[in-house]
Formats: sequence, C-alpha cells, structure tokens
Amino acid sequence: MNYRMMGKFISRILLVEAAFMLPALLISLYESEMRSVCGFLTSIVITLSLALALWFLCRKAKKGFYAKEGLVCVGASWIVMSLLGCLPFYFSGEIPHFMDALFETVSGFTTTGASVLADVEALSMGNLYWRSFTHWLGGMGVLVFVLALGRGNGNDKSDGYTMHLLRAESPGPKVGKLVPKMKETAKILYFIYFFLTVLNVIFLLIGRMPLFDAVCTAFGTAGTGGFGIKSDSMAGYSPYLQDVCTVFMLLFGVNFTCYYMLLIKQVKSVFRDEELRFYVGIALGSIVLIAWNVRDMYGSLEETVRHAAFQVASIMTTTGFATTDFDLWPSFSKAILLGLMLIGACAGSTGGGFKCGRALLLLKSLRRNVRQILHPQKVQVVRVNHQMVQERVLDNTNAYLAAYAFIIVFSFIVISIDGFSTMTNFSAVLACFNNIGPGLETVGPTCNFGGYSVLSKGMLIVDMLAGRLEIFPILILFSKSTWTRR
Amino acid sequence: MNYRMMGKFISRILLVEAAFMLPALLISLYESEMRSVCGFLTSIVITLSLALALWFLCRKAKKGFYAKEGLVCVGASWIVMSLLGCLPFYFSGEIPHFMDALFETVSGFTTTGASVLADVEALSMGNLYWRSFTHWLGGMGVLVFVLALGRGNGNDKSDGYTMHLLRAESPGPKVGKLVPKMKETAKILYFIYFFLTVLNVIFLLIGRMPLFDAVCTAFGTAGTGGFGIKSDSMAGYSPYLQDVCTVFMLLFGVNFTCYYMLLIKQVKSVFRDEELRFYVGIALGSIVLIAWNVRDMYGSLEETVRHAAFQVASIMTTTGFATTDFDLWPSFSKAILLGLMLIGACAGSTGGGFKCGRALLLLKSLRRNVRQILHPQKVQVVRVNHQMVQERVLDNTNAYLAAYAFIIVFSFIVISIDGFSTMTNFSAVLACFNNIGPGLETVGPTCNFGGYSVLSKGMLIVDMLAGRLEIFPILILFSKSTWTRR
Repeated sequence: MNYRMMGKFISRILLVEAAFMLPALLISLYESEMRSVCGFLTSIVITLSLALALWFLCRKAKKGFYAKEGLVCVGASWIVMSLLGCLPFYFSGEIPHFMDALFETVSGFTTTGASVLADVEALSMGNLYWRSFTHWLGGMGVLVFVLALGRGNGNDKSDGYTMHLLRAESPGPKVGKLVPKMKETAKILYFIYFFLTVLNVIFLLIGRMPLFDAVCTAFGTAGTGGFGIKSDSMAGYSPYLQDVCTVFMLLFGVNFTCYYMLLIKQVKSVFRDEELRFYVGIALGSIVLIAWNVRDMYGSLEETVRHAAFQVASIMTTTGFATTDFDLWPSFSKAILLGLMLIGACAGSTGGGFKCGRALLLLKSLRRNVRQILHPQKVQVVRVNHQMVQERVLDNTNAYLAAYAFIIVFSFIVISIDGFSTMTNFSAVLACFNNIGPGLETVGPTCNFGGYSVLSKGMLIVDMLAGRLEIFPILILFSKSTWTRR
Repeated sequence: MNYRMMGKFISRILLVEAAFMLPALLISLYESEMRSVCGFLTSIVITLSLALALWFLCRKAKKGFYAKEGLVCVGASWIVMSLLGCLPFYFSGEIPHFMDALFETVSGFTTTGASVLADVEALSMGNLYWRSFTHWLGGMGVLVFVLALGRGNGNDKSDGYTMHLLRAESPGPKVGKLVPKMKETAKILYFIYFFLTVLNVIFLLIGRMPLFDAVCTAFGTAGTGGFGIKSDSMAGYSPYLQDVCTVFMLLFGVNFTCYYMLLIKQVKSVFRDEELRFYVGIALGSIVLIAWNVRDMYGSLEETVRHAAFQVASIMTTTGFATTDFDLWPSFSKAILLGLMLIGACAGSTGGGFKCGRALLLLKSLRRNVRQILHPQKVQVVRVNHQMVQERVLDNTNAYLAAYAFIIVFSFIVISIDGFSTMTNFSAVLACFNNIGPGLETVGPTCNFGGYSVLSKGMLIVDMLAGRLEIFPILILFSKSTWTRR
C-alpha cells in the first residue's frame, strides 16, 4: 500500500476543504456571529495544520498507485474530510455533541440531507451556509474537484492514478472517460455542474427568493442533498419556486454524460439514451399514480400535481426536500416513494440510490436469463444503447445488488436496538444508505434523526458513506485482506 | 412446445390429487359432515373427469421434453392443481368466495400458511384435514411424488424428462441427483420425508396430542407450511408439544441431502456442510439475541427461550406457526424476524425463502469481488464445501436475487392500493413470497389476510407460487418469448 501517495493526496483535499471554509467564515464575520467565527477560525487552523503535517510526512511519495490504493484513498479521504468538516458545528457550540455534528456533516458531504436538528433556523448564517455547501462539494465529489484543479501533466501514468480515484468516487456501474484524458473529463463535469448551479440560482432569484436562500437551496439541489435552511423545508416557498426546484432536482438526477453530449451537439444520442428514458418514464409514471392517489388531499389539480411532482423528484433524485408531509399520504403513494428510494437517480449524476442504470442492467440481464432457459443453445448478450455490456460490468452490478441487500438488512437490524418502530428503522436505513434524507414515521419529512443512539448514528454514518461511495471503497476499508500482506 | 406431453403429465397429477381427496372424504363421512361430503364428492368427480379428458386428448404425445417444457409444465401443474384443490372449500360453502378458497389452497400447496379465515375452528374436520394435507403434498412437491410413483423404465431419455421436472420444482440454487437415476432420487427423498413425518406424529402423540391434531400438525410442520387447526395456532399446546414442533420445524428446514448422507453413513460430511453450519449458526444466534431482547416479557428463562426458539424456527424455516404474538415484541426482535424471513431455510428442504445456500453463495461471491479488486491479477474462485462453484450457478443465484428484489418491490406497490399500513403490506409480501404465512401488524400471527381486495389476493397468490417454485417457472409462464415461435 502506497501510504505516502495517499497521505499526499489527502493533504491536498484538506487544503481545499480549509479554503472552502473561508466563505463561511466571511459570512459569519459579516453577520457578526462571534461564536461561529471562532468555530470556523479554529477549524481552519486545525485543518490547515493537519494538511501541512501530512504533506510534510508524505512528501517523498513513490510512484505506483493501483485500484486498491484508489479505493482506500477515497474511503479514507471522505472519512477524514467529514471528521474535520464537522468541527465548525462543534466548536461554535451550535451542535454540541460531536457525534451529532459528525452525522450532520457526513449527511452533508454524502448529499443525504438527513438532519439531527429539530430547529434548523436556530443555526447561524455561517454554519447554515457551510452545511448547505457540504452538499455541493460532496455532490460531484471532492476528489474529482481536486483532480480537476491539480497540475499533473496528464501523461499516461498520472492518468491511471486519476482514473482509479475518479472511478472510485463517481457513481454508476461503469465510469467512462468523456474525453481521452481523465483530468479533462473532471474539468468538464465540474463546468457543467457549476453552470447548472448558477442557472438554478438565477431562476430562484427571479422568483424573488433572497440571495442567501437561493444559493443555499441551489447547493442542496445541485448536490441532490436536501438540507433546507427552513424548518419546513420548501413548504413555505411560492409554487413557482417549488416548481423551479422540481425541475432542477430532476435535471441534477440525469447522467452528466447526457449534458456533455448536448454540449458537443449529439442531441439524438441523448434522446435515445435508455437510462434517461427509463428515468423519465418512472418519474412521470410515479407522478401520475401519486397525483391520482392523493387527489382528495389538495385543493386544486395544480396543487396536487405540484406536490406529487415535487416529492417524486425529491425522493427519486435522493434530494430529500419536501413541500408537504408525505408521511400522511395514503399507503399506495408511500409505497411508490419507497420504491423510488430504492431505484434512485441516473448513474453519473449527483443523485444516490441503486441507480436507474443498474436497475435497467439487472432487468435486461434477468430477461437474458429467462431467454437462456428457453433457448439454451443460443448465446445471449445484454445490450444497452445498442452496445454490448461486458460480462464484467454485469457481474459487478450483481455483486453491488448483493452488497446493497446485505447492508440494508444488517443496518436495519442494528439500529432496531433503539426500539423505534419497524417502519421508522427501515425507512431510516433506506433514507441514509440511498442518501435521500427523510424517511417515514419518526424520521419523516417533518421530523429528524436526533432521537437515535450513538451506536445507531454510527451505523447510519457508515451507511451514508457506503451509499455515496457505492459500497466498495467502504467494504475494502473494512476488509481484512486489504491490510494483510501476501 | 410439447403440449401433449405436458397435458399427459398434468392428467397424472390430477389423478393423484383426486386420490388424495379420498381420505378427506372419508373423514367427512365418518364425522357425518354432509356439506363437506358433497363438496369432496363434487370436487373428486370434476378432478377425475378433467384428468380423464386431458389424458384422452393428449394420449398420443410425442417424445421430446426440454428444460423449457419442464418449467412451463411445473408452473401450469401448480396452477391447475390449486384451481381444483380449492373446490372442496368452495363447494362445501365453508369458504364462500372462490378467490378466498383459491388463496387458501395456494397458500396450502405452496406451504405458505397465510390464511383468509378469521376462525379456523369453524371448518369441518374433512376440510381441516385437506387444508393441512395440501402442505404435506406441496412441501416435497407433487410432481416429485408423481415421478417417484411413475412406472418409467428409468432409461436415459425418461431420466432427462424427470430431471427437468425435478429441477424446476425443487428448491435451491443447484439441484443434484443423489443417486444416478432421478426417479430413485425422488423415491429416496419421499422416503425420508415420509419417515420424518411419521416420527413427528409419534413424538406429538407421546405428548398426548389427539391423533387428528397430531397428523395435521405434522403435515404443517413437514411441509413447513404453518396452517394450524386452532385459531391460536400452537399457543394452546403444552410446552413439550411446542418444543417438539420447534425441533421438527428446524429438521424439515435442513437440506434433505444431509439426511441421505446420514443414511449412507457419511456423518462427517454432514457436519462439515457449510450451508448447514450457516443455517444452525443463524438460528442459534437469532434465538440468543431475541431471548435477550424479550427477557422481560415472559415469566421464566425456560418460557423466554421456548418462545424465542419456536418463533425463530417457525419464521426461518418459513413454517409460520406461532406460540405468541410476536407482533408485540420489541423492534429489535421483529427486525431479526424480518431478516430471517428474507433468508429462509436450507436449499433442498421443504422450507421457502431466499435460502441459506444462496445467501452463503452471494456472501462468498461478494468476498471474491472484493478480493478481485485488491488483487486484479489473480484468478479467484468461489468454493463451497471445498468444491468449486460453477460460474453458471453464481450467475443464476445473482439473477435470482435480482428477480426476488423486483418481485418484492412490485408486489408491495400493487397491494398498497388497498390502503393498509406500509408495514402490513411489506410484511404481507415477504410472508407470502417467502411462503411463511403470518406477517406483521394487520397480517400478524393473530390476524389474517381476509381484508385484502381480490386484486391484492391475486397478486399474493402469484407471489406464493413464484416463491415456492423459485420464480423462474412463473416468470417463464408470463414471458412473451415462451409463447412465440421462432
């Protein structure tokens, strides 16, 4: 294991993290929130010192960086980043328990949006900004950001290194390069991300949302995170603002490759993209079914459809904003939402969950299996977008499903020790593991995760990280054979 | 598709079914239950006529029977068998709605044990016997029985035909022959099954259970079905009888190959069997955890352990008897039970669920995937009991998990239309699909499935059949490409 190379990389991540705390510090200064100014100052100093110490210790790194190092590095980075990212909440005293602060921060970086806070509005402006910003940073991936920034000359060797890291951090069954060089790919992704976020802010400002709210909401939307800055999430905003949110949540749940395709004017291939069709189809179908099911609960057709569309977009893209308490909806609507929680957004988007692309692959692979029984002599292949899918990708997707199922069952049993209702626990695990945020009943959209014990919070933190990093980096961190030499 | 061969086979199944209705008819006659005598007479006449008509139509069957025909034949047989098996309930008027009678019968044959009846004790003795007997018949498989009876000379051709049928009906990721000839294998399996059932009856009689009760209870235990003949399931029986039940439920959840190994004195290989160890380990672990969790609910340690062990055995082997209302247990215990519902018993037993063998395969295959990331150059294989598992078996296990997950989510959404609570619906699907019986809340151990609409009952019937036949025979029945010619 190339520890020095990993240390060097993590030191760069911490530098970036410290830098990103500066705007929050400035906001706190501007608003004269003295406790959070102290919090941010202390956090920045600690983060910087650690970054420098790590850089000094690991400055003589050797070459040699493989898939294993990439995965361990990603897992370790996210953990270190979260441990330091929670310091502002802790030092300012606004989230007095360290585990709570850590939960909130991991929930931020992993774009989950599950909160332990009963009253969000009690936070200072600086901390509110930082809390929402963690979503934006976590959405596209901090490592991707660092890679996009990095100087590296882009030769083959450093490209392999970048590739391993990017693969480990980016969501989806198959991470490809958009352009021959990974570094350029990272830059393009961040450009699209940045552009869409700005567009989102502009549309919110047009609807007369205050600038601070607009920026924070856009961060939460872009990262498909879901931290609101109001206790009632998005319920208090105007219908126009809610609709803007719906549209942008759905947009951020689309595979970013599609946007790149639009950029290079391959419009046709975007419209023919099977995952995109699957995603849009499920979203529209769910909106229609839920709107029909809750038709008697709201005053007008517009209101019904608006709430249905907002909640579907929010849950399916794993954002987790809410305009209404869907825990009060009838079972059928809740069942659809639970189904959407499982599927999630498109691969290669900022959304979490199992991913539409994977579900599509599994369905196709299942159809193949049935056909193989019917026609055992015939060689059958799985195709997506007219291209043959490699058996290795199918194999990994299957392994992913197995890991996914085991983790859900295991975490569900662990957090049940706290004695909350079965539905609360089950939806809490789904909401954290799929990086959604709110669940049902005691962790529903109007409630929070504050009641869970430290053990359960720990379990849910692992779930959030495993969900965001797509299981394997975390599995590998906990695997014995990673740490034994052969 | 060789329809005639299939028709001929189904006609034999119906003959056997009609023959098995005779004891129930005799019981009704003995007890002078005139309405159920009429019910059985009418049902036997209809079943026999249909069998003869089918035999006459298909008497000139050609040779040629492949995996495809085997699967379709198994699916079709079970459906036809259930449609006729429910007639006694319907014609006697004891279950007045046809859909309810069908639900009860499918629940019987698939060894689910989910009931629509609020008061079981209101049934006549004849129908009670028939209801429990469907479990026994369904447990080891009706087709297997017919095959074991059949005259066939056991040459290679008819062996292939037997193999396809046996494979399709028997549970587990990999169905092997115990002895070179499939027909002999079927006979051995039925011999063990019969022997254990008789043993169970004897042990129950020793505990002074009335003969009728003992036979019906043994049918429910042997098939891991769970229909009781009392409204309070097993709660009213003595501790000794409950313990006998616990032990036999666990015994019927063991892969029958293990018993065959014992018969031929390969004791060591039984103790080394990884699936058996996995099964016993999970059962013991769950009993300890639940006993600890519910320690304050019962008077003595003996009572606590007895209830914990009974419920764990009942749920894990997917039998579904109950000695206590586990819906009142704390969340942690319920979470463990839900986990056990998912895993189920051993492959090659009469129990349902995902099967321990499959879970073990998936865990091992997951470990392989992690190792493959760590050491990409090395070829890794999955071994069970020191034997390499074929990639094809792993592939099928993965496909099974995917199908399993899709069916659960789909059925859950469909039955949610009825408006029961989310937990009720979710546990109802798990309980039916895994052939367990009782779920939680409205379908808990003291309640029944009578409240669901016809649509939901239909969905749950499909789930029960798909669960018992391990999905693919049912998937293939509903697959377009089965019915199109190429």
